[in-house]
Amino acid sequence: MPSLNIKAIVFDAYGTLLDISSIDQLLTDLFGQKSGLIARLWRQKQLEYTWLRTLMERYVNFQQITEDALIYATRVADVGLAKSEQQTLMEAYNQLEIYSEVKQALEALGAHYQLAVLSNANQAMLEKAIAHNGIHALFEAVISVEETGLYKPRPEVYALAQQKFCVERSQLLFISSNTWDVAGARSFGLKVAWANRFNNEMEELGFEPDLIVSDLKELSDYLILPEND
Amino acid sequence: MPSLNIKAIVFDAYGTLLDISSIDQLLTDLFGQKSGLIARLWRQKQLEYTWLRTLMERYVNFQQITEDALIYATRVADVGLAKSEQQTLMEAYNQLEIYSEVKQALEALGAHYQLAVLSNANQAMLEKAIAHNGIHALFEAVISVEETGLYKPRPEVYALAQQKFCVERSQLLFISSNTWDVAGARSFGLKVAWANRFNNEMEELGFEPDLIVSDLKELSDYLILPEND
Repeated sequence: MPSLNIKAIVFDAYGTLLDISSIDQLLTDLFGQKSGLIARLWRQKQLEYTWLRTLMERYVNFQQITEDALIYATRVADVGLAKSEQQTLMEAYNQLEIYSEVKQALEALGAHYQLAVLSNANQAMLEKAIAHNGIHALFEAVISVEETGLYKPRPEVYALAQQKFCVERSQLLFISSNTWDVAGARSFGLKVAWANRFNNEMEELGFEPDLIVSDLKELSDYLILPEND
Repeated sequence: MPSLNIKAIVFDAYGTLLDISSIDQLLTDLFGQKSGLIARLWRQKQLEYTWLRTLMERYVNFQQITEDALIYATRVADVGLAKSEQQTLMEAYNQLEIYSEVKQALEALGAHYQLAVLSNANQAMLEKAIAHNGIHALFEAVISVEETGLYKPRPEVYALAQQKFCVERSQLLFISSNTWDVAGARSFGLKVAWANRFNNEMEELGFEPDLIVSDLKELSDYLILPEND
C-alpha cells in the first residue's frame, strides 16, 4: 500500500465530482456572447458569497447563494434575467453531470475504502445532484455544511467528516479540485489530494496537498494498485 | 443637517483613500503586456487571502498577504519575480497615492466630524501609507485590524471603530469603495456610504448602503452643506 494510511475518502462535490461546465450550453443559448462572462462571475461570486456570509455571520443556504450570484452576474453583464430563465438555470444547476471518469473511479475506490461527500450545498440540493447521477449508493454518507450554518474553509465543516467516520484527522483523505478547499482541509489536519483537472496553480495560503492527481481515475490507480508502486 | 445623525466618520483605506492603480506604471515597466493580468490577480488574491485565512483561523498580517498574492499572481502569469522586484513592488505598495479629491474633502469633513481610518493593513503598513500622503494629522485614530487577528468583514473588526469613539453603531458613518466591505459594515450595524468611484454594481449580500456617492468630495458636499439640501 502507498504510505497515506487512510481509512476513508471524502469528496468535494462541485468541480470535483460535478462538472460545473455542463451548464455552459444553456448559458450560451440564453445569453449568447455574454455567457462566458456570466459563467465566470456566477462561479466567482458564488464562492465569494459563501466566504463573506460566513465571515459576516449571515448564513443563507447554497441554493440561495447560487441564485444571488446568478442575479449579480447577469446584472454586471447588463442582461435581463426573467424569473422563468432563473428557474431554468437553477434546475439545470441541480442536474449537473459528473465528470466522465467519476463513476468508475468511485466504484473501484468503494471496494477498498469507505466513501463520503462533503459539500457546501444544502442537503436537499446535494442529494438531488448525487441522485441525478446514480452514484448515491456508493457513499456511506452525503454530508452538507448546512447543520453548521458555516461554509468551507471553516474548520467546523471539515470536522463533520471526521465526526462521521470517528477517525483521526490524518486517517481521512479529502479530495477537491478547488485550491482554497485543499488549503482549508490541510489546515484542519486532513490528508488532502488535489484533483488538478485544469493545470491550475496552488494558492499561496501556507498549505500544500499531500498528493496531486489529474482526476479521480489517477487517484484510484494510485490508491488501489499498490503493487505497481 | 441631513438626517444621517452621525458623530464620526470612519474611512476604509485601500481603494477608498488610497489609489491602488498608482502602482500600475511600475507593473507595466516590469511585466509589459502581462501587467494588467497581474494587477487584477494581485488585488483579487489579496482580498481572497484575507477572507480565507480568517475562515481558516490562520492570520498573517496584510504585508505578508500582499506579498503572497503578488507571488501567486506572477506565478499564474508565468513571469519571474526576482527578490529585488518583489521588494520594489512592495515598497511602491507602501507608497500608494491618495485620490486627488481626498485631502481637501478630509479637511472639510474634519472641521465638522471626528475622522478615523479602519483598514485591513497592519499598523506599520497603514501608518506608512497615511504618513506618505501627509494626511495623518487629520485623523483622530488610525485603526488596524491587526489586534483582532481577523480581517473584514468580521464583526469584531468594525467593532474596533465603535469602541474607539464610544458611540452607538448607528452614530458612525463608515465609507468604503469596496462593495463587500459596505455590506459587512451594514451587517454590523454601522451607517454606511458607498464611494462608487467606478460605477460598479452592489453585491447581492442582503445589505445596501445608506448613501451612495461617487467620491469623497460628494460625501463632503452632502454632509457639510446642509443648507443646500
